[in-house]
Amino acid sequence: MRLRNVKNKQEILDSSSYLVKDPYSWKGKWKEFFSNDHPIHIEIGMGKGQFIIGLALANPNINYIGIEKYDSVIARALEKVPEGISNLVMIRMNALEIDQVFFQEVSHIYLNFSDPWPKKRHHFRRLTSKIFLEKYDSIFEHDCCIEMRTDNQELYIYSLESLSQYGYSFYDISFHLHQDQDVSITTEYEDRFTKDGNPIYYFLSKKKK
Amino acid sequence: MRLRNVKNKQEILDSSSYLVKDPYSWKGKWKEFFSNDHPIHIEIGMGKGQFIIGLALANPNINYIGIEKYDSVIARALEKVPEGISNLVMIRMNALEIDQVFFQEVSHIYLNFSDPWPKKRHHFRRLTSKIFLEKYDSIFEHDCCIEMRTDNQELYIYSLESLSQYGYSFYDISFHLHQDQDVSITTEYEDRFTKDGNPIYYFLSKKKK
Repeated sequence: MRLRNVKNKQEILDSSSYLVKDPYSWKGKWKEFFSNDHPIHIEIGMGKGQFIIGLALANPNINYIGIEKYDSVIARALEKVPEGISNLVMIRMNALEIDQVFFQEVSHIYLNFSDPWPKKRHHFRRLTSKIFLEKYDSIFEHDCCIEMRTDNQELYIYSLESLSQYGYSFYDISFHLHQDQDVSITTEYEDRFTKDGNPIYYFLSKKKK
Repeated sequence: MRLRNVKNKQEILDSSSYLVKDPYSWKGKWKEFFSNDHPIHIEIGMGKGQFIIGLALANPNINYIGIEKYDSVIARALEKVPEGISNLVMIRMNALEIDQVFFQEVSHIYLNFSDPWPKKRHHFRRLTSKIFLEKYDSIFEHDCCIEMRTDNQELYIYSLESLSQYGYSFYDISFHLHQDQDVSITTEYEDRFTKDGNPIYYFLSKKKK
């Protein structure tokens, strides 16, 4: 997700206590970071944060970490974090470095409206390509669990196939999430996109470790 | 599947020892029928039988039952059954009666190139509609296991959703089976269809009983 430049973004990033400035130093120690043994769920590419903030408020016994690579976007997300929330932090990083920041400690990965990288020569950059699935293997604590939403059918089908070939099974599949299920926590993009009845593709997948 | 009329079809049906003439009387007793305790796999809509005959030859420790509703089609299949094969029989019946013929004794259902029933008002007739999934529940011995191949993307997506909503999980998914995997046992229709590189959609799904 790109966003208009946020002028005071550096100031927001520097001053927010919800941005972890040295994420690499917490690799393998995120339970210590949160000072409890609750499961850790991450969203890779959290955009402006509405989804993960909603989850964190709804599930106080789960720790959430939102990851986003663009300064301007994460600045907007940081501004939205409600004061006093103790089960949510954010990291500004490229997803390619995910295995340098986590090690056998994540329970669940959310991938919402990830970049579809439409050109074939860019498919390896998709967050569900084998390159990333291999990285995810090393960050999961127990079973691997990935939940995806996208409006891009091509990325969705690619992801179903890629995960299936990598040993993931699918426990929930929908080609029109908002028609099939009640969805209470959404992303900003999803709200705009579904207003006109456009379909959201969804799956919940798991792999034994 | 429809087929040109086979003139001597009644003679073939009457004389074949591989056609079970009184399937309803074996309900709940198919292991007795085969005189062994091997698992029972069925194909609903087996067409001219190439697929299920191939499976029966490859897996002597599994009992196979091919189901087909058209006389002319099942006559062609019966003609193809190799002499002396003891783990395969065929039944001429409408799939709607499946729960009048089996009870808690089937391990696996194959659905290959089922009628897509494209009109919305006919969707309930699809072999993956809720009506059929309910019937399948009563025929499975242990866990429910359904494997599907189709060239019809709309039927495929409908089936993924229908089974997902009914509690099935998916253990293998492919939007281009013959590109993704080595496939040794095929249907007649599949051979013709894939010759030009057309995609076959595939899944393997299971549900705890």
